[in-house]
Amino acid sequence: MIRVSTRPDLRDALANLRKNDAKLGFVPTMGFLHEGHASLIRHARHSCDRVVVSLFVNPKQFGPNEDLERYPRDAERDQELCRREGVDILWMPRTEDVYPPGFRTEIHVQGLSDPLCGQMRPGHFTGVATVVARLLGLVRPDRAYFGQKDFQQWRILAQMVEDLALPVEIVRCPIVREPDGLALSSRNTYLSPEDRARALSLSRALARAMSAYLAGERQTDRLLAMARRHLADLDVEYLELRDLDSLQAVSTLDTHAVLAVAARLGQTRLIDNAILAPDSPDTDLPRLLEGAFL
Amino acid sequence: MIRVSTRPDLRDALANLRKNDAKLGFVPTMGFLHEGHASLIRHARHSCDRVVVSLFVNPKQFGPNEDLERYPRDAERDQELCRREGVDILWMPRTEDVYPPGFRTEIHVQGLSDPLCGQMRPGHFTGVATVVARLLGLVRPDRAYFGQKDFQQWRILAQMVEDLALPVEIVRCPIVREPDGLALSSRNTYLSPEDRARALSLSRALARAMSAYLAGERQTDRLLAMARRHLADLDVEYLELRDLDSLQAVSTLDTHAVLAVAARLGQTRLIDNAILAPDSPDTDLPRLLEGAFL
Repeated sequence: MIRVSTRPDLRDALANLRKNDAKLGFVPTMGFLHEGHASLIRHARHSCDRVVVSLFVNPKQFGPNEDLERYPRDAERDQELCRREGVDILWMPRTEDVYPPGFRTEIHVQGLSDPLCGQMRPGHFTGVATVVARLLGLVRPDRAYFGQKDFQQWRILAQMVEDLALPVEIVRCPIVREPDGLALSSRNTYLSPEDRARALSLSRALARAMSAYLAGERQTDRLLAMARRHLADLDVEYLELRDLDSLQAVSTLDTHAVLAVAARLGQTRLIDNAILAPDSPDTDLPRLLEGAFL
Repeated sequence: MIRVSTRPDLRDALANLRKNDAKLGFVPTMGFLHEGHASLIRHARHSCDRVVVSLFVNPKQFGPNEDLERYPRDAERDQELCRREGVDILWMPRTEDVYPPGFRTEIHVQGLSDPLCGQMRPGHFTGVATVVARLLGLVRPDRAYFGQKDFQQWRILAQMVEDLALPVEIVRCPIVREPDGLALSSRNTYLSPEDRARALSLSRALARAMSAYLAGERQTDRLLAMARRHLADLDVEYLELRDLDSLQAVSTLDTHAVLAVAARLGQTRLIDNAILAPDSPDTDLPRLLEGAFL
């Protein structure tokens, strides 16, 4: 594995990798890697010849009162994980490599950036779209991999890539969960043992709705009510059923929809979601409920 | 010359052109082509193997009270000019080829889009940056050519391409003028004979300042005052000296600066500019003053 920081070093390392028309997979991350990131890397390794991982805590996607400063970092462990997973290039840029002096471009994906997390985090998705466009331009991969846990981010980036006709395929990978259901997140490290236990309500709420959906329930208000019952003890920011393509609220479940939840546990903001569709990667969620009642 | 409209037809035509690693030059236009556009095409032909011209009156760069509806169009004459100039592909997209349903991305280049024409035309440069990014994505040229007459547009696009690390070189080409000095513009066709005569004040104002600059004048207020004297009869929107890189106002002329003017003649808004620098392509402007006094 080659570790690079500056843009010239990245360019040289990429030029080497790209020989013989090798397909390049790219996994952009903010570091503090966990099994979710490892799963993205494995997806990339499976469908590409070479894999590049970037590790950059992007200041533009944090609001003024958010956790940029205390966002967890562990470069040593991240490098170890990347090495173990067979990453070819680990790119750890400095801020000035991503945002050189005079950087001025901003990308906004209208409509898709406004609801859900966008409502709680103004400017967040503009920061995400902008940095990813920049990273894609510098790395120029054939495919880039994003986790479904941040499904709104994935949807926005897929739209951006389509609209700008960028020469890259955006791949969405399934959510990776702890055995008890908690969706993996670098921010889970913030949780106290008590909050860690309470956090299970998120995945259980989704599991309850998925269970009803699989049993044939298609009324959104009933699905939402079932999920909401599991969230009574939490400070819920939103619980919503949205069309997976437009992110508009849905009243009837005739297309692919996503049930998305965000909640605060102490200082920590957690999100989770499940795609309600016949071919959903989340159809095994109801097993969590069996565990919960054992 | 191949004329295409739909994206699949464009893609097929481009695939053919790109064989044998041909360098691709691209000239995006809004049509109603004149010698300024012809000059862009000739620059492209000179430094590339193949040339693509697009012709699309982009609704996103017109404000609600601007001239989108009456913007001049003459597809027949445009095709004839392109054929004559040796264009390989003339792309005349329909609106839905450029903006398919669900198109949602917007590109804003902060700072550079705010002053000068940006102040008069809110949203204009966001529309320009967005459509050019989209067109660049669909055509994927090696080089794209823009006229200095719209120098703020050129500066914004060059910054966007740098920031997003797009794989294209943005080339700025000199202003083409009528023999009497009027900068070519599709909008000149709007001018009454009286306004056409008055419009010469713009280039003469620039010529006066350039003349003083070449004689060693470096005080911006004096250069501006000299230019302003020629504009007394016009409805001037702005006359400003700005740093060519940052577009910030300059007080001393120690770097490359641009003297830019915008004025209204009846319903018509005209712009013009001159780069004040030792190696400026505009150093021949003072000859206009000789003509004026003959």
